[in-house]
Amino acid sequence: MKLIKKLNILIVGLGLLGGSYAKGLKKLGFQVNAITKEQSSVDFALEHGIIDYGTTKVEPQIIADADIVIFALYPHVFKEWIKENQQYFKSGAVITDVTGVKSCVVYDIQAMLRDDVEFIAAHPMAGKESSGVENSDDAIFKGANYIVVPTEKNTKEAIELCANLGELLGFSKVSVLSVEKHDRMIAFLSQLTHCIAVSLMCSNDDPDLVEYTGDSFRDLTRIANINDEMWSELFLSNKEVLLEQMDIYRATFNKLYDFINKDDRDGMRDMMRLSTARRREFNKKV
Amino acid sequence: MKLIKKLNILIVGLGLLGGSYAKGLKKLGFQVNAITKEQSSVDFALEHGIIDYGTTKVEPQIIADADIVIFALYPHVFKEWIKENQQYFKSGAVITDVTGVKSCVVYDIQAMLRDDVEFIAAHPMAGKESSGVENSDDAIFKGANYIVVPTEKNTKEAIELCANLGELLGFSKVSVLSVEKHDRMIAFLSQLTHCIAVSLMCSNDDPDLVEYTGDSFRDLTRIANINDEMWSELFLSNKEVLLEQMDIYRATFNKLYDFINKDDRDGMRDMMRLSTARRREFNKKV
Repeated sequence: MKLIKKLNILIVGLGLLGGSYAKGLKKLGFQVNAITKEQSSVDFALEHGIIDYGTTKVEPQIIADADIVIFALYPHVFKEWIKENQQYFKSGAVITDVTGVKSCVVYDIQAMLRDDVEFIAAHPMAGKESSGVENSDDAIFKGANYIVVPTEKNTKEAIELCANLGELLGFSKVSVLSVEKHDRMIAFLSQLTHCIAVSLMCSNDDPDLVEYTGDSFRDLTRIANINDEMWSELFLSNKEVLLEQMDIYRATFNKLYDFINKDDRDGMRDMMRLSTARRREFNKKV
Repeated sequence: MKLIKKLNILIVGLGLLGGSYAKGLKKLGFQVNAITKEQSSVDFALEHGIIDYGTTKVEPQIIADADIVIFALYPHVFKEWIKENQQYFKSGAVITDVTGVKSCVVYDIQAMLRDDVEFIAAHPMAGKESSGVENSDDAIFKGANYIVVPTEKNTKEAIELCANLGELLGFSKVSVLSVEKHDRMIAFLSQLTHCIAVSLMCSNDDPDLVEYTGDSFRDLTRIANINDEMWSELFLSNKEVLLEQMDIYRATFNKLYDFINKDDRDGMRDMMRLSTARRREFNKKV
């Protein structure tokens, strides 16, 4: 399959990400349909020209019409949906997703999926603090990373199609990672940082904090404003890997604590020089 | 003393903050002189019209001319300087500073200072990742907080003068805190956040991180690019209070860790809802 404009794309789950995909894909000229939970999301998307057709029911015909199906659902809802409705897929359809952790969905779904349909996982690393199709915006893809996460079961063609989708949507960098490397990377870069922000914000109940803060605290706690339903599910879906990264981080934090406690200025400065060197390298590449 | 334009202001230590003060004060029409370590800083500041006169020597006359002296030095250098040179101050002069921690300087300096000179401490909560007079910019004060930190020894007049200085320089909020409350607040808002950023950056040596990151990790590690000489001194100057805040934070982080480890979704979600509510409150006030 090639990504040509006459393709019919179905989005399942019209929230912030599903809506942003729909917006971007419709601008590119594709036929974009959607199935989602709330009628208000369908109404909003139709009124604003984000989709061509939308429904809150599982309508076999619009599933059967789709060449590509993009799932933007919570992991456990995603798996349930496939189990119950995969008989409606068109033969040869490619399905992909936006799930933030992969080992908890990819293997199960590939194992249960019909042989004539292929699931290629993807993780668009874009978002906003606000949720819902009302806040969707395909501009969030600019400057962001998009990761294709294939397994041994995936074909070269589907991997390419999925990468092309990321490029077409305007992501700045499209790359390919194994499931295990993806989930470890995400545990460190995204899940651990959210754990830190939540913990930091829960560590002080002084209502006057904001009167005295500088930018550091604002930056570190921006993501403490968090969707608790989604993130608790994502944390538990990647539990072992996340706990491993949390262990490494707290050991490093405890090392710094001990240097301060022992007045070990050289130990502290070594850590600071390492963090500075790494962060500068980081700046160059961004 | 009132802040009128004919006042003579001496800045001791012409780095990023000293230079930014000089720029702002000179624009306001004050006579601004400076004493600093490096001739290159004096040359730069004179060439760019940041100061009226500068020297790398302790010249008794320019100290004696100053109505207000602003110290932008490391804590231990600041104390040494006062000890060695306070005989040159004009009688009735007011001295202030920009030091990021207060208990380690305020009491010692007020105890040793001549009776006819008053030291009123201040903390301008503004900065940049880059240092030196070459990067100075009085625009960094806009949107930033300025805290006056008096002790029982300070007069109402000096507290007002110091607050006026913050207002004149363009800080968005000027407030007054006790030494103890200031240092506890700073330990939490500023020092702990730098400890977290340094630890996070030191927890992973994968050179490919940047290829896959989202905004969260970028935001949390921006301040991991850190002046190790200055920050190690600031941490040790506020050691007991900082360790206390680090203890509170790591207990909270460990609580979240345990919830994840025990699959306690409700426990996690309670913490996330608390952090979200607090951060939203924070957004409103910013």
